[in-house]
Amino acid sequence: MTELFKQLEPATQGTRKAISTLLDAARWNDDGLLPAIAQQHDSGEVLMMAWMNRATLEETLATGRVCYWSRSRGKPWRKGESSGQVQRLMAAHVDCDGDTLLLSVDQQGPACHTGRRSCFYVALGEEMAEIVSAPLMDPAELYGQR
Amino acid sequence: MTELFKQLEPATQGTRKAISTLLDAARWNDDGLLPAIAQQHDSGEVLMMAWMNRATLEETLATGRVCYWSRSRGKPWRKGESSGQVQRLMAAHVDCDGDTLLLSVDQQGPACHTGRRSCFYVALGEEMAEIVSAPLMDPAELYGQR
Repeated sequence: MTELFKQLEPATQGTRKAISTLLDAARWNDDGLLPAIAQQHDSGEVLMMAWMNRATLEETLATGRVCYWSRSRGKPWRKGESSGQVQRLMAAHVDCDGDTLLLSVDQQGPACHTGRRSCFYVALGEEMAEIVSAPLMDPAELYGQR
Repeated sequence: MTELFKQLEPATQGTRKAISTLLDAARWNDDGLLPAIAQQHDSGEVLMMAWMNRATLEETLATGRVCYWSRSRGKPWRKGESSGQVQRLMAAHVDCDGDTLLLSVDQQGPACHTGRRSCFYVALGEEMAEIVSAPLMDPAELYGQR
């Protein structure tokens, strides 16, 4: 917990800080990243979780189009750039200890690379796990031939 | 992406796997943990994100009471054990590549250690960040004298 986030704990609604000060105090991990949860703004459905560095978060806040950091490709990932399934940013929040982002988004079509609306389609029980949704569309349509 | 999660990508609704097989294939991080997002089951509000190892996830699935792994204390953290603000598990899901959990919970009172319902109370804009909710209760009431 950084000093700034500690100071903000008892803060009343409407208290403001410069975004640069806040992002200086955020607890980026050893790779300079924060996990970012994407939630559909109207339905409340949690769609996916990905990662952002400071540059991609700042780009997202400036443009209103969600841009993650792709850990596998090691570069910015403007959601929808290959699939067409863009995420528009409605609101962004950081949590109490400055180490997790929550994005309220408007997601076009499937958020998941499998063609499903949400990435969270495997339900876990004490004995069994079960697939709870089928793809809305063929991933080959989303990405072309792979 | 592990082979099992790759196989499950095109799976139809109702496909089942033994939970032990699925958890063997999950992508636990270098500390043996997965991030776990907690969402209030009826309102859809995202309350917090914390971490689970395999033992605390299995305990949670078995007991229906959410138990995280506390990274700071290095031990299981049965949510509410010091604050009284228990989380009951309604459903648990893992995502497409097996590296993030989504918990549907019934949270008693505030989820956040600051006394707020949700940990995500700092809104981020291009220039400014703003506190968007006040504590529901005094953290001193939640935890006693600290």
